[in-house]
Amino acid sequence: MPKHRYAIGVDFGTESGRAVLVDVANGKEVATSVYRYRNGVIDEVLPTPGRPIRLEPDWALQDPEDYIRTFKRTIPDLLKKTGVGPEDVIGVGTDFTACTMMPVRADGTPLCTLPEFRRNPHAWVKLWKHHAAQPEADKINATARSMGEPWLSRYGGKISSEWFFAKTLQILDEAPEIYNAADRLIEGADWVVWELTGVETRNSCTAGYKAMWSKRDGFPADRFFAALDPRLEQVIDTKMTRAIRSLGECAGELSPQAARWTGLRPGTAVSIGNVDAHVSVPAATVIRPGQMVMIMGTSICHMVLGQEEQSVEGMCGVVEDGIIPGLFGFEAGQSGVGDIFAWFVDACVPPEYHHAARKSKVDLHRQLELEAAMLKPGETGLLALDWWNGNRSILVNVDLTGLLVGATLSTRAPEIYRALIESTAFGTRVIIEAFERNRVSVNELVACGGLPEKNRLLMQIYADVTGREIKVTASQQTPALGSAMFAAVAAGREAGGYDTILDAAQRMARLQEKTYKPCEGNRKAYDQLFGEYTRLYDYFGRGQNDVMKHLKSLRQEVLSAKVS
Amino acid sequence: MPKHRYAIGVDFGTESGRAVLVDVANGKEVATSVYRYRNGVIDEVLPTPGRPIRLEPDWALQDPEDYIRTFKRTIPDLLKKTGVGPEDVIGVGTDFTACTMMPVRADGTPLCTLPEFRRNPHAWVKLWKHHAAQPEADKINATARSMGEPWLSRYGGKISSEWFFAKTLQILDEAPEIYNAADRLIEGADWVVWELTGVETRNSCTAGYKAMWSKRDGFPADRFFAALDPRLEQVIDTKMTRAIRSLGECAGELSPQAARWTGLRPGTAVSIGNVDAHVSVPAATVIRPGQMVMIMGTSICHMVLGQEEQSVEGMCGVVEDGIIPGLFGFEAGQSGVGDIFAWFVDACVPPEYHHAARKSKVDLHRQLELEAAMLKPGETGLLALDWWNGNRSILVNVDLTGLLVGATLSTRAPEIYRALIESTAFGTRVIIEAFERNRVSVNELVACGGLPEKNRLLMQIYADVTGREIKVTASQQTPALGSAMFAAVAAGREAGGYDTILDAAQRMARLQEKTYKPCEGNRKAYDQLFGEYTRLYDYFGRGQNDVMKHLKSLRQEVLSAKVS
Repeated sequence: MPKHRYAIGVDFGTESGRAVLVDVANGKEVATSVYRYRNGVIDEVLPTPGRPIRLEPDWALQDPEDYIRTFKRTIPDLLKKTGVGPEDVIGVGTDFTACTMMPVRADGTPLCTLPEFRRNPHAWVKLWKHHAAQPEADKINATARSMGEPWLSRYGGKISSEWFFAKTLQILDEAPEIYNAADRLIEGADWVVWELTGVETRNSCTAGYKAMWSKRDGFPADRFFAALDPRLEQVIDTKMTRAIRSLGECAGELSPQAARWTGLRPGTAVSIGNVDAHVSVPAATVIRPGQMVMIMGTSICHMVLGQEEQSVEGMCGVVEDGIIPGLFGFEAGQSGVGDIFAWFVDACVPPEYHHAARKSKVDLHRQLELEAAMLKPGETGLLALDWWNGNRSILVNVDLTGLLVGATLSTRAPEIYRALIESTAFGTRVIIEAFERNRVSVNELVACGGLPEKNRLLMQIYADVTGREIKVTASQQTPALGSAMFAAVAAGREAGGYDTILDAAQRMARLQEKTYKPCEGNRKAYDQLFGEYTRLYDYFGRGQNDVMKHLKSLRQEVLSAKVS
Repeated sequence: MPKHRYAIGVDFGTESGRAVLVDVANGKEVATSVYRYRNGVIDEVLPTPGRPIRLEPDWALQDPEDYIRTFKRTIPDLLKKTGVGPEDVIGVGTDFTACTMMPVRADGTPLCTLPEFRRNPHAWVKLWKHHAAQPEADKINATARSMGEPWLSRYGGKISSEWFFAKTLQILDEAPEIYNAADRLIEGADWVVWELTGVETRNSCTAGYKAMWSKRDGFPADRFFAALDPRLEQVIDTKMTRAIRSLGECAGELSPQAARWTGLRPGTAVSIGNVDAHVSVPAATVIRPGQMVMIMGTSICHMVLGQEEQSVEGMCGVVEDGIIPGLFGFEAGQSGVGDIFAWFVDACVPPEYHHAARKSKVDLHRQLELEAAMLKPGETGLLALDWWNGNRSILVNVDLTGLLVGATLSTRAPEIYRALIESTAFGTRVIIEAFERNRVSVNELVACGGLPEKNRLLMQIYADVTGREIKVTASQQTPALGSAMFAAVAAGREAGGYDTILDAAQRMARLQEKTYKPCEGNRKAYDQLFGEYTRLYDYFGRGQNDVMKHLKSLRQEVLSAKVS
């Protein structure tokens, strides 16, 4: 019997870091260990002693020491729990939220760990959901449009305030002393790899999706950055690098220091940094053009592989080598899905359903799902636009809001719950159709994330509405598994790993047997409802009636007047 | 000190009959007595022994014996409670729901009381909210349009399925034996007067608003009825009468039999029948052109007086002498108001507000009102179309449904509650503007009904949205007071009553001191919101996007397929 070889994947999330120990031969997840960040999401006050430093609205920071603590706590825990020896761990891989970025010294020391900068919010890690750089994003978009920058179309025509240069520009605008003190500006995804290996590398996924880099054209030209701000002209060459490494490459070997943190052997292979969503794609068995992964949770991230670059309305980005080396990775997304259902359950469900759920010993989502499942498509008489949290793809408009039509005096909570689920399925269908209209085929759907496990009705509705069979990943922690797969690739076949991520996917990634097949009998009603949805989508989303925007700005006016 | 004289008003409602004893000199309501109908609204099974006779959906019947029991129980109770002697009661007046009609023998005996017809649903009283005559209403409308009938414009271009000839035609279609056996077809409003006096009379209010009669043109021509059905050609002359009596006239004297039922003296004056909404107008002090009464409850009935006949889009009807003799009474309405709030409170409010209400010892409406009152106009970010129960005026479309736009993940119940209230206020403003566009002035608003007492926030919002001061009637039972006022007019000045309803109104009707004045600071936001409301109103209500109708018919299809 051959000796077992293992790889470790570490998934850096929003509230915690999660490590899994995976059997390289078959992808079996042998053990898991989670570290909940001590300082979590920092969105009110900096975790510094003395007079409290309060943050502005829309800020969201993290503490880089939480990432190091994740390594120190979880990896030794995995070895201890399983008795696996460090000599049998062939590689470590990581994935990260993105864009989550920070200013550091030339040796990688985060500015926020230095006493002179510790009380400056801009010295800390800006988390993906830091939303305070909207003016800077607006400036980037306006400048790019006026200069006719060709890369803008790769991002559906709009750069998000969450992305790298919006955050960078905010630092420069509001804290030039931090910008100047930063020898490097770096994604968390790359920083943790640097901490493991002692070598600075940059990955093609965050560079491509968050920093406007492409394999063929590199970064935007210096004159573009100069147009944003003369001080930014040399940002790439002085604080970043043009040497972007492809996913699946080996970043380096585990440093002696990192070996002490983790209990692994110095020299263990470490893979290039990656992003949580994107690393999940091969872990969901998706390695070929025409396959789409849906990461379904509070929101949905849609990723499709293609052989050619195409411009697709309202997608988040297309990056060559951004997901699977050798292919173009297309990303799109819905900004509100699970969180709309959570809102409904929290804000709109009367006591009778709470009682019923308690009586049946199920949670309220499940209670509503069971009642909603007894309805046929079209039976609710309701239709919603799933814009409670704005619309990411394909309209890219945060000012859009939720709409429900069709309510009568006999409308009940399970009907609204079902209509909300249906509306998010229609939102996914709009995205799929936008891809297909632009020659990016979507033949197969694979779902992962929290929702597929929680709500079978939802999965069936998605299959019915999209007219496509949906497969579901076997792993409950797809990103960490994906990171372990990339670790096995970084280690290489000779060390007991794999030559390519395709090989790793074939051996280590698995799907559940249960799939969701479209029910032919539901097709007609959903096609009709989708037609109605599309008409409302265009009417409210494409400028024919900007009532949502008007209501939002009136609300802002009223709130401002109330405060002053 | 002059001797006190009293009048009795009896208000026949949907679930009960209510009598008040009123001091004729000053309108003081000395005592009230309510009889809850034994058989209530009959909408499932006839109250007959033996094998149950089940009713079709949308049926709603009443038992005429409940009306007689109302007289027998309440009037003796009033006299007993107060010690007022029958010699001091100068008149009895009544008002009724409408159109509430029944087939009777030549002597007034309802067919449903005869053994041979008791088990036939068509022999019973068809209550106003019997909605099973829609096909017949459609036929009346189509026929009237094709024949170019001039009276159609007096009813906003559409006859309701609730009205007299729709119900009559349904009897003829489905139970010709009942139609043939009916010597008379009569409104409940007129039948109870017949029972009190022994004399058949017909009032101008129900004839005008429910049976297409007008003072100048009479009923539609026989050839119109013949076009509907040859058997209907002579319906007016054989089963009704062309002798329509004006409101405020004396119908006759109390018969010996009715005197025995009530404990009043034979010969006591009885006024001509009237309708609950319309009889409330003078009781709300409204007797002049330009004044509008809003009866605000589950729905709102709007009544305005004018000096000339005008055609107003989507009004329910205009009738000369229909409310106040000598004036044109215009009626419009909103089909859902209080019942939308009741729906919301019942179907959409999570437990935390139930807890808060219990803790504060207020009902849930009040709890939400208090929280919603802390918001400024525009602050909710929400806008609704108040069509949960369709739209009566000015679109006259039962297929319209409710819409809510502007929801976000932070939307909470009091915000939706406020948006719903605002939407009904916008609905009233649409009606007022339709009147004013057509030269029917609306200078003054007087509110009565249940809502003004229950919800101050709502009243203030109506004042702000309409830009008009709103007065509120002092009486809690405006219809019964109005009936007592007409009773005093029927008795006449010599008997201690009044010559005209105008005189009676000046002495017997009162308003509260508290009024609701528009708040200038709220005007701008509401004008803006009303602009948005109007745009959605036209888009969804006037055929640009028939999604509401489509959702309703899809729902019907699905439900039918489910049953079969």
